[in-house]
Amino acid sequence: MAHDDDNEPYWLYGFHAVRAALGNPARKIHRMVASRNALNRLEMEPPKNVDMMDVRGISKLLGSDTVHQGIAIYVEPLETKTMDALADATAVLCLDHITDPHNVGAILRSAVAFKVDAVVTTRRHSASETGALAKAASGALDLIDLVAVTNLSRAVAELQTMGFATAALDSEAPMALEDLAPAHRWAFVLGAEGKGVRQGVVATCGQSARIEADGALASLNVSNAAAITLYAMRKSLLKG
Amino acid sequence: MAHDDDNEPYWLYGFHAVRAALGNPARKIHRMVASRNALNRLEMEPPKNVDMMDVRGISKLLGSDTVHQGIAIYVEPLETKTMDALADATAVLCLDHITDPHNVGAILRSAVAFKVDAVVTTRRHSASETGALAKAASGALDLIDLVAVTNLSRAVAELQTMGFATAALDSEAPMALEDLAPAHRWAFVLGAEGKGVRQGVVATCGQSARIEADGALASLNVSNAAAITLYAMRKSLLKG
Repeated sequence: MAHDDDNEPYWLYGFHAVRAALGNPARKIHRMVASRNALNRLEMEPPKNVDMMDVRGISKLLGSDTVHQGIAIYVEPLETKTMDALADATAVLCLDHITDPHNVGAILRSAVAFKVDAVVTTRRHSASETGALAKAASGALDLIDLVAVTNLSRAVAELQTMGFATAALDSEAPMALEDLAPAHRWAFVLGAEGKGVRQGVVATCGQSARIEADGALASLNVSNAAAITLYAMRKSLLKG
Repeated sequence: MAHDDDNEPYWLYGFHAVRAALGNPARKIHRMVASRNALNRLEMEPPKNVDMMDVRGISKLLGSDTVHQGIAIYVEPLETKTMDALADATAVLCLDHITDPHNVGAILRSAVAFKVDAVVTTRRHSASETGALAKAASGALDLIDLVAVTNLSRAVAELQTMGFATAALDSEAPMALEDLAPAHRWAFVLGAEGKGVRQGVVATCGQSARIEADGALASLNVSNAAAITLYAMRKSLLKG
């Protein structure tokens, strides 16, 4: 996220997303628009110079199909972090070329819910930080560390050096997710739907695991696969 | 789905969705458009009278923001079934007023992957069967029984009479999902984000359970919650 080449300000909208961004000291906010109702519902000190605007005005500003819930802020994308940020992390999720903003947003949301310390993405071929992504993340975007790397295989190798067990999720892997050996630090890698995790990244991980699902469709939506992986990690794969 | 009052034909698009619909004998198809590439990729006998059309022509027909992958069919919504269809079912998912088509589509996809026999929805206040829902379901819409009911509490009571253990998912329930007693037949109820399962339906279920997630956000995307629930059901809650 927050690619080098598209770090333009954007409208971040929706109640949970805006509230989390307002509470994030690292978030640079240029402008805020809100309806009276939405501002009251916020129950926190809004920035000065809020433009009070009715819902229709906000829809006109953001586009009529934007589910803004009466509140939006014009923001800079967050600064991404480097691998150094993972020194004390125990749970990391790596996204290999996942570009759908709704899926990435939902994944960030589950990552925060399951106390993942950071999400690692590639600087290119990832979903950009947009309003749609932030809305799907429902506040999670401003609650988790995002690490952007140039080369995901190299990042996985670094994680291993740091002591992380690593595994790629693959619906055709022979090993089931819950048969992985528990470890004190875990990094899981998920790939784009259809393509999966790239071969070079899988090779660096050293092991792959599948979510056992033997119905007529074997492949899950990638955010659903991520949620199950994090649930299994918290239940049995991460040692206390 | 397939509400009484909006059972109009619609464009179903996307490779997996169209392929599953073509393979469903119950699916009524009025018309098909496809690019030469998409038709070749299908590797099955297409209906007669396919309109060959390039990708740009299909985009013009369906709307430019539709991810149709070069293939679309104009179809009747499926006939929904009644509670009788659940006589031999062992795993059922009930959706209480979940209206987002992407979420419902993703839930159907996980339901098929985890061998759920049927998904029960309310006739009103549910997502209608649309192209967006079918695309998110990635073929699952044509691979699972859909039961539409007028009153979900009554449906839950009927499931109990049929021998199903029933539980509502609730992020604030004291009991954790995996602490539910295993049973031979399970029906889980999920509610809309924010609102959750309605009180009357929860009361009929008799028990609620939460997905343990103690991060800064406690609530998961509803399709992610459904995926975890079905995974736990297959792992430990459903007796062989």
